[in-house]
Amino acid sequence: MPRRLAAPKQVIKRLPVYLRILDDLVRRGIKVVSSRELSAASGFTAEQIRKDLAHFGAFGTRGTGYNTTFLRDKIIQIIGLDRPTNIIVVGAGHLGKALTRYNAINNPYVNIVGVFDTDPGTVGSRIGSLKILHLLKIPEFVKRYCVRVAIITVPAEAAQQVVNQVTGCGVKAILNFAPAQLQVPEDVHIHNADLTTELQSLIYYATPGK
Amino acid sequence: MPRRLAAPKQVIKRLPVYLRILDDLVRRGIKVVSSRELSAASGFTAEQIRKDLAHFGAFGTRGTGYNTTFLRDKIIQIIGLDRPTNIIVVGAGHLGKALTRYNAINNPYVNIVGVFDTDPGTVGSRIGSLKILHLLKIPEFVKRYCVRVAIITVPAEAAQQVVNQVTGCGVKAILNFAPAQLQVPEDVHIHNADLTTELQSLIYYATPGK
Repeated sequence: MPRRLAAPKQVIKRLPVYLRILDDLVRRGIKVVSSRELSAASGFTAEQIRKDLAHFGAFGTRGTGYNTTFLRDKIIQIIGLDRPTNIIVVGAGHLGKALTRYNAINNPYVNIVGVFDTDPGTVGSRIGSLKILHLLKIPEFVKRYCVRVAIITVPAEAAQQVVNQVTGCGVKAILNFAPAQLQVPEDVHIHNADLTTELQSLIYYATPGK
Repeated sequence: MPRRLAAPKQVIKRLPVYLRILDDLVRRGIKVVSSRELSAASGFTAEQIRKDLAHFGAFGTRGTGYNTTFLRDKIIQIIGLDRPTNIIVVGAGHLGKALTRYNAINNPYVNIVGVFDTDPGTVGSRIGSLKILHLLKIPEFVKRYCVRVAIITVPAEAAQQVVNQVTGCGVKAILNFAPAQLQVPEDVHIHNADLTTELQSLIYYATPGK
């Protein structure tokens, strides 16, 4: 399987969108989909979609389209969702709690297995079935559950230390919600989901005259 | 002021990052900053920063750098944060609640003024000082408070209808957390902050061998 070929970042970002659409088509019993139909459902052009998928092999039949189940399963493999992915959330404030609860209902392929905080009033309490643990437990936990992805929702001033801690024990991908520019080792991928920054850049477009 | 010049999307996305750094410098009493120092703090190259800022005028002095207060105030004007921006949150589930609370503490320039839901058990209760209102109140509310930005945290199947409703009464920018591809009028800017999609594309990088 050509999974390990380096594909551009933007292609990797679109794969989960295709996956969501294919999941829905399979659920509705639809067996074949054209790139034009994928385009209508995703907002990306049909040509873009064909090029994106061609990075990983030849999945479609000209004039017919893609077999929905086959393509869905291929994308699951390409992303790496065919094996369970264990994720931890560091920071059990409002946002950390919401993300943990949200994930439990909305995400079939991703599994939040641990939530961590330092606040003595928070550590020991539960979010659904998960007990909030102290940050000191992270190294042992990450090793035991082979955690390679962390969501960071701690305050900005604590974020770099948390990043050092989780990357030091094997985490390779971070979704960061702290409003801070963080340094990571070269082999670690970090995505900043800074809500303040996103809101502010949206406001630019909301001002009359744009 | 050359505020209305069209700047590329990517430039607009970086402005709030510069703002955060400048805010911090001003707070620490630092009066001048070089593009090299801004580069170290932001992770963008000094050249990129100079090019970004040059879109809006000549703010720096060669060999000296930028006056921090002056540049901060200019960026505030360029983004449009010099006047209060009223924002609504539609969907008062866990995520909507967390974003509303998070905003109250973390965002000096942005003001969440209303939170909406349809659930009879939720409508009427409070998040901090805000009373959760029914979706039916949106048009009147948006007009009264000149709301032009909405954060959407409703379930996927309700999202398009909410988008139609808010854009129909004047909202021009949307931060969407619903895992759905939404259609907006041409003059509306939408940013999809789909956490499931972001997590899945991160998992690609967390798989051994990447």
